[in-house]
Amino acid sequence: MANGNIVPLTELIAQFERLPGIGKKTAQRLAFSILEQPPERAEKFAEALVNARRKIHFCKVCQSLTDMDVCSICGDSERDRSVICVVEDPKDVMAFERTREYGGTYHVLHGVISPLDGVGPDQLRIKELMARLGSGEVTEIIMATNPTVEGEATASYLSRLIKPMGIKVTRLAYGIPVGGDLEYADEFTLARALEGRNEI
Amino acid sequence: MANGNIVPLTELIAQFERLPGIGKKTAQRLAFSILEQPPERAEKFAEALVNARRKIHFCKVCQSLTDMDVCSICGDSERDRSVICVVEDPKDVMAFERTREYGGTYHVLHGVISPLDGVGPDQLRIKELMARLGSGEVTEIIMATNPTVEGEATASYLSRLIKPMGIKVTRLAYGIPVGGDLEYADEFTLARALEGRNEI
Repeated sequence: MANGNIVPLTELIAQFERLPGIGKKTAQRLAFSILEQPPERAEKFAEALVNARRKIHFCKVCQSLTDMDVCSICGDSERDRSVICVVEDPKDVMAFERTREYGGTYHVLHGVISPLDGVGPDQLRIKELMARLGSGEVTEIIMATNPTVEGEATASYLSRLIKPMGIKVTRLAYGIPVGGDLEYADEFTLARALEGRNEI
Repeated sequence: MANGNIVPLTELIAQFERLPGIGKKTAQRLAFSILEQPPERAEKFAEALVNARRKIHFCKVCQSLTDMDVCSICGDSERDRSVICVVEDPKDVMAFERTREYGGTYHVLHGVISPLDGVGPDQLRIKELMARLGSGEVTEIIMATNPTVEGEATASYLSRLIKPMGIKVTRLAYGIPVGGDLEYADEFTLARALEGRNEI
């Protein structure tokens, strides 16, 4: 009723509302913005949605996202294939790439071991990681799962699996965030920062 | 580069980023949420976008949005056609409808007179409003433009145009918002609330 029974509008608002973090008011605002734009804009948006969903799949090597057979990182001969950075999510790959500091490759687990959510090792891309270690080319695995209980548990599970193969397993450093304020750092972070202190 | 050169993903993020109030990070989050859903979801979303934009246009009577010839409010014989509530935007119609208190009709101006933005009376749906007043059926016009300088100017411009036709022109009451805190009310609102005080 509030939309004056305009079914296509109600439907568009509902679609926006299904997106994560988008509430009723924002969904309405976004839907109206589409109506205010030329029809070509809506068509291009629609095309981008369908295209992205259809063309993007997992890289058959690292399990990150790609629209090719093998992603641009795995396919780049300049990248150091002896190091694999293991992350939970394709978004984490992008976060590392933004640093422009890492020249190795990645492996995306697509989650973490979480018995409470019914996620065991078999639901993650661990088999695919193990397959990559067989060639003997890899010398270091950087565990870059999130600093949560599940992230830690997954990192140590993998570590126990990989170390016996004679491959070095490392973990990201804990510490205070750059630009952060000590006053607001939680006690666990601060304790880890103290523990991991370096000589200057 | 940060997206690993996945063109369809970059394009989808760009489309989300073009929406009002959606920044780079949110656009990325929304695009990823599409990739995590089954393809049918993306297709339904795409369809809703194109459908809404194609099927929704202005009601030929009140200039609000509709997917029919005449909107559901103008077409409703139960609504009181002797009162027209004049608003700036179709969103305002929905705001009034949510109150469930108003039984008259609407007229959407699609903006306000704003010389600085190059918007004069000719750019608004004023001609269409005047055409509705010719029949003699209308006895009251409620000016419900926003309480801004431009909204006020537009209301008084229209009032000068309509009053000579013997039609009553009213303006929404100013006052403190329901549930608001006096402490935070600005001095203009408070002065108007005082001015418009009612006996209890």
